[in-house]
Amino acid sequence: NDKEEVPDLSDPYSQDPSRHPVLKVNSAKPFNAEPPPEILTERYITPNELFFKRNHLPVPNINPDEYQLTIDGPHGTNQEAPLKLSLNDLKTKFPRHEVIVTLQCAGNRRSEMSAVKPVKGLDWGIAAISNARWAGALLRDVLLDAGYTEDTPKALHVHFEGLDKDLTGTKYGASISFQRAMNKQNEVLLAYEMNGEPIPRDHGFPLRVIVPGVVGARNVKWLGQISVSTEESSSHWQQNDYKGFNPCIDWDTVDFKSSPSIQELPVQSAITEPKAGQTVTPDSDDKVTVKGYAWSGDGREIVRVDVSLDGGKTWNVAELYGEKQKERQSWAWKLWKLEASLPTEDKEVTIICKAVDSSYNVQPDTVAPIWNLRGVLNNAWHRVHVSVHRD
Amino acid sequence: NDKEEVPDLSDPYSQDPSRHPVLKVNSAKPFNAEPPPEILTERYITPNELFFKRNHLPVPNINPDEYQLTIDGPHGTNQEAPLKLSLNDLKTKFPRHEVIVTLQCAGNRRSEMSAVKPVKGLDWGIAAISNARWAGALLRDVLLDAGYTEDTPKALHVHFEGLDKDLTGTKYGASISFQRAMNKQNEVLLAYEMNGEPIPRDHGFPLRVIVPGVVGARNVKWLGQISVSTEESSSHWQQNDYKGFNPCIDWDTVDFKSSPSIQELPVQSAITEPKAGQTVTPDSDDKVTVKGYAWSGDGREIVRVDVSLDGGKTWNVAELYGEKQKERQSWAWKLWKLEASLPTEDKEVTIICKAVDSSYNVQPDTVAPIWNLRGVLNNAWHRVHVSVHRD
Ligand SMILES: [Mo]
Ligand SMILES: [Mo]
Repeated sequence: NDKEEVPDLSDPYSQDPSRHPVLKVNSAKPFNAEPPPEILTERYITPNELFFKRNHLPVPNINPDEYQLTIDGPHGTNQEAPLKLSLNDLKTKFPRHEVIVTLQCAGNRRSEMSAVKPVKGLDWGIAAISNARWAGALLRDVLLDAGYTEDTPKALHVHFEGLDKDLTGTKYGASISFQRAMNKQNEVLLAYEMNGEPIPRDHGFPLRVIVPGVVGARNVKWLGQISVSTEESSSHWQQNDYKGFNPCIDWDTVDFKSSPSIQELPVQSAITEPKAGQTVTPDSDDKVTVKGYAWSGDGREIVRVDVSLDGGKTWNVAELYGEKQKERQSWAWKLWKLEASLPTEDKEVTIICKAVDSSYNVQPDTVAPIWNLRGVLNNAWHRVHVSVHRD
Repeated sequence: NDKEEVPDLSDPYSQDPSRHPVLKVNSAKPFNAEPPPEILTERYITPNELFFKRNHLPVPNINPDEYQLTIDGPHGTNQEAPLKLSLNDLKTKFPRHEVIVTLQCAGNRRSEMSAVKPVKGLDWGIAAISNARWAGALLRDVLLDAGYTEDTPKALHVHFEGLDKDLTGTKYGASISFQRAMNKQNEVLLAYEMNGEPIPRDHGFPLRVIVPGVVGARNVKWLGQISVSTEESSSHWQQNDYKGFNPCIDWDTVDFKSSPSIQELPVQSAITEPKAGQTVTPDSDDKVTVKGYAWSGDGREIVRVDVSLDGGKTWNVAELYGEKQKERQSWAWKLWKLEASLPTEDKEVTIICKAVDSSYNVQPDTVAPIWNLRGVLNNAWHRVHVSVHRD
């Protein structure tokens, strides 16, 4: 029994929480894991314990009664002194706002990129993406309370610092634009609830930022401090990681300053059933069921998912499932399903999916032209090779 | 001399204006034409007479002194009676707002789609896109003046009716969402100026709608009437045209109700120099100059353009040109240029470009998987085959 084990205090990860055994662990310390893909499409809302986990550092152990969020005030004003808010302040002083948001790691589907050419990074499959209902205070309301307005001079970026830190004391950090934070329509949250429960420790207890439509890395967990600046966060993860490059940039030629930090993510989809390498048996109508997810960044809605069962020669339109969200505020994924015939006689079949979002953005056909040295932003068509068994 | 010709009054197009002879005419009546592509990338702002022209109907001849814009008032309020505004009212009662916006026809690059399989539509090359500085009143300000607020009940879509009409009297019409119209950040304009001049007749004199980031078809010219509704415009162009479908939908199976009307356009780029079929002569450093444009919809900025001179095996990053616009309000294109070496020895070369926008959306590799029966939304990599001449 885990709980009875004596923690090894020399191991900074000794106080990490226990995890669901079904998760596929890509890294134990820090803990990074994804659910089996077919579990993702069983439900629109991903249960907390199955939601993908992407930690950069040990999970801090925070006493919610002593917890304080610090928000630096605007320079040169009478509110310059930092605002300190307890968890109770956050829950009672600001309206509770609830929103369904899909989070995706920039490294989702990295394993397909590594297959083209090796990259540096955790070997994520297709399940570094999950969907939850988050509740908390709007970041906008908290910034207004701290003395900021839409016109605060030199307010260009909002920095988030986590309470997770490495052995040298460096904390996780990231930033988003001030404009994104202040625009009500973006619904940026300081979330204390995940699917109706206090946010679990692995997901940022007691408070994490939720930035709808934006890469997981900016959704800072175990939030300790907020500040506002003319510059982006100086953290490693903002400056020298989580950026896209073209496939001919290698570690000798890369200039991280030349690319923008990843914020909004592009249109994405993947097939969760059947699985690669599986043998599928068509039903009595000679049909098989194909399932998956589709999502796009910045509130763009998924308007269509095309599925091919013949390697891309012909395309079927899948049925979409999920709650209707507001225009340009479609933060959550759509699940999709298709019952379709396999090409007659073929013993080996490649199933492909590709999604279209409300800007009619589409996914690129192949991985190689979007390959990049960090293996981020893989949104090429997802291909699954299966064998067909007919009686 | 055109001016001395006696107009044929039985021809509804007899009063169309004269046009610049350099334009490539895709249809004379209605007039549809694009500039030679290399002219597009000579200047960031496209001169009015070279700006692509996409007319659905004859150009109306409007007396600016008698012109009136009608805006239907909100139902069940004391402002229900239509508001009537003269051109002078529009120029003097509302603040003048100026913004650089690239417009693109949904059918831009259709000829590459027709090459895959025939489509219905005008045979546009790569130049059904242009960039201008527009000035006018913000639609938001006019709607507020007409009695609408962000909370007006049942205000979901804003309809625009042109003064151009067919022989039965049916006028051109289109709609955008009320939310897009009312959100200041979207800068939707009722424009009376194009590049510092009154809007030319072919471009909508005296007033056209400019919807930044949105397909040309919603930028209604010769604007006569604005109304607000729970439904989208019932016009042919909103309901049964300007929609995307998957490549397996044909005219027998198409259900126009199944797809959303095209509004925001996806990330796009094309090579304007060299031209397809051209023989290029490398300079003394064995380099050639490649030029083009890149743009994305909904205010997404172009963050990178990759150019390949070896058919997609390796990629160079092009230099970008253009004015910096605000975050998520990057309505204008970027021009780009690359001086690069051709693969040694090759006599025939395929040059390719692909752009990346601020959501890290990319263009798809090939045309066939995005082919659709109307030939719209072609944003596949642009490929140009050239011959190489070395002394
Ligand atoms: Mo991530
Ligand atoms: Mo168009």
